[in-house]
Amino acid sequence: MSARFDHVLAAVVAVGDELVLGQKLDTNSRWIADRLVLRGLDVAAHLTVPDDVDAISSAIRRFAERVELLILTGGLGPTADDLTRAALAAALDEQLVLDERALEQVRLWFTSRGREMPEQNRAQALRPQTARMLRNDHGTAPALHAILDNRCDIFCLPGPPHEMQPIFERDIEPTLRLPPERAVHTTVIHTFGRGESDVAAQLADLMDRSRNPLVGTTASLGVVSVRIRARGPDGPQRLRETESLVRTRLSEILLDDESLAVDVLNRLKARQQTVATVESCTGGLVGEMLTSIPGSSQAFVGGLITYTNELKHRLADVPHQVFETEGAVSKPCAIAMAEGGRAHCHADHAIAITGIAGPDGGTDAKPVGTVWIAVASENAPTDARRFLFKGSRQAIRTWSAATALGMLRLRLAGHNMRLLNQQEP
Amino acid sequence: MSARFDHVLAAVVAVGDELVLGQKLDTNSRWIADRLVLRGLDVAAHLTVPDDVDAISSAIRRFAERVELLILTGGLGPTADDLTRAALAAALDEQLVLDERALEQVRLWFTSRGREMPEQNRAQALRPQTARMLRNDHGTAPALHAILDNRCDIFCLPGPPHEMQPIFERDIEPTLRLPPERAVHTTVIHTFGRGESDVAAQLADLMDRSRNPLVGTTASLGVVSVRIRARGPDGPQRLRETESLVRTRLSEILLDDESLAVDVLNRLKARQQTVATVESCTGGLVGEMLTSIPGSSQAFVGGLITYTNELKHRLADVPHQVFETEGAVSKPCAIAMAEGGRAHCHADHAIAITGIAGPDGGTDAKPVGTVWIAVASENAPTDARRFLFKGSRQAIRTWSAATALGMLRLRLAGHNMRLLNQQEP
Repeated sequence: MSARFDHVLAAVVAVGDELVLGQKLDTNSRWIADRLVLRGLDVAAHLTVPDDVDAISSAIRRFAERVELLILTGGLGPTADDLTRAALAAALDEQLVLDERALEQVRLWFTSRGREMPEQNRAQALRPQTARMLRNDHGTAPALHAILDNRCDIFCLPGPPHEMQPIFERDIEPTLRLPPERAVHTTVIHTFGRGESDVAAQLADLMDRSRNPLVGTTASLGVVSVRIRARGPDGPQRLRETESLVRTRLSEILLDDESLAVDVLNRLKARQQTVATVESCTGGLVGEMLTSIPGSSQAFVGGLITYTNELKHRLADVPHQVFETEGAVSKPCAIAMAEGGRAHCHADHAIAITGIAGPDGGTDAKPVGTVWIAVASENAPTDARRFLFKGSRQAIRTWSAATALGMLRLRLAGHNMRLLNQQEP
Repeated sequence: MSARFDHVLAAVVAVGDELVLGQKLDTNSRWIADRLVLRGLDVAAHLTVPDDVDAISSAIRRFAERVELLILTGGLGPTADDLTRAALAAALDEQLVLDERALEQVRLWFTSRGREMPEQNRAQALRPQTARMLRNDHGTAPALHAILDNRCDIFCLPGPPHEMQPIFERDIEPTLRLPPERAVHTTVIHTFGRGESDVAAQLADLMDRSRNPLVGTTASLGVVSVRIRARGPDGPQRLRETESLVRTRLSEILLDDESLAVDVLNRLKARQQTVATVESCTGGLVGEMLTSIPGSSQAFVGGLITYTNELKHRLADVPHQVFETEGAVSKPCAIAMAEGGRAHCHADHAIAITGIAGPDGGTDAKPVGTVWIAVASENAPTDARRFLFKGSRQAIRTWSAATALGMLRLRLAGHNMRLLNQQEP
């Protein structure tokens, strides 16, 4: 790598028909961009192009006019539709030459596995004349590095993430050192309980686009995240000041973590308490969210999936009479599920969810999206609330699960605010 | 939408700082591209750009010179960093005007939820003069449709997938009709039980890149999908012939549906049988997968999440002695969980999963990724198998859940083949 440490603007290009045609999801570009931004670089764009020499080489040339670091992934395989090498040569206006050392490494990759190198893998040892090869320890395709017009560093990395990432970490990341006056400093603060526009309204003055730091919001399933990004030599100081303003204004709804599950598990562990789940329309989703976190067994004991009324009765002791008088989507049913589940699972808290996820099963009085959520705890009255979630079956289920964790969080944090989508009973 | 049915080339643009900076993975572009290709269109590129009017509008203008359909997602929120509306207006060289009907819909979205519309959400009812608004039933941001230079249809859709997808399906997909000589005919056949390279080897002659139809494979969590794509006036006939060849060669592993859960539920309903789940390391994921399918309550009764040993004993009657002699990740534990769960839930079948999802907890004898899965049924010996899954905690959990459904499928289909990742006991 050249000894220039003044990269500021970067771009990422993913190469592959299977990506452009939507048969496969590209995760490399996000991973690379995240790493570049953490190192203080700015990313101008991600582009995904097909296995086509013209498309790849014109992307290289166009980006090289604007950015100082260009990273491509994919198209380095041995087959006829792997064209990134040829496209890089075309962009550099150079011939492809055989790199003997690279050929030796490709051959070694096969022989060390007791196989002979297929003839077509010779292509992987080709490089444009002025490019250099970067060793690939996890696959046959060496990576490439070239400099275009003496101003843009271009890296071509293999597509499989387990091959790409080690090369990035070994040969690119260590060279990304910005001088302090050009560094970028970022942080993210997560909240739960208010809508994105409410949060943005509270931060309106900080979100002015001409301000440094820049402040922006994003929302995902009720978690509203505030992103702060400061530039310049006094960036760390500016970042701290704005972060402190944001935290003060949003103190009631701050999360420990982007994940509500992590927030809730941390609060439970701090109190040495446990929770169980009793799920009907979510069918196990809350349990899944909690157990996706390593170490969750310290606070999550397990739970019941009571999808039918028979199992609500058999496993959680909901009286048959509740189904007859109030129905399974009702306050008494949610309360009985939470209290019965807590008793059966011997937990300090239990969350119960019963609702109509649709698309069928709604009525005028209980339309699709009607969900009752209850939180039962030792020595506290059971908190039961009615919600109306809109959207698809999947949307209603994921909102239900997130909101159930949000209700437990309110209890653990000692708050009692009304939540998004909550209805009068 | 204009009545022109000659769209052929399309491009997809994702808008958002959080995407360009790698803080969030864009899944919309892949989803849209996949749908477009299934309808016979070609996709030129995907581009991801920041929340910046110039970046978005110049992307619109540049693509509009090359493609006939351009779909943008994101940047339609109510805040100052939601700039897609302004960028579309700039690209069209038009002013933004307030759309009274859209404003009414945005307002209604809030009032139907018992809230007042925040003033800043007025911005979501703005549109370029010649654009029209497309109703959003699942969020506040209406989508936009405009035509640039009388040749490129431009759609701006909201970023959240559960808002974007229904608008795409309602307002874009039905209009994508190509004339017969340009039409592309596609189908997808799903399989479960063998690896992608095995499936590809069985179809090698059909997968030649110069053949019409084109045949390709993709794999996701053990489901290997075979995509067939025929062009030309005799496309339907060619498609049928190749599909029939593929189905014959893969008959043992064909799925009813892309979803293993749908396949399993259909088989259970046909027999009027039920299933229950008993989950440890997957924490509710199998229940979640089954209940994500509408109508699943006809065959899925519910289940137990037995995350701790205490709950494995208390809820599923696993004898304490099993934990002491064999441990919780063992054949006898999986069998006891399945049989105990089946009895408690009164189901015809029960699936049990117990394993080490990591990142901690592995040993030499039982490394991270070791998972026992058992299927208990009335009048049949319980089938218990040991698997070793590689990858992250999430990968191990999702593979475990998919494989558990695959094991139940084997029982219901009367097959007894060895599955991917299965180990000697």
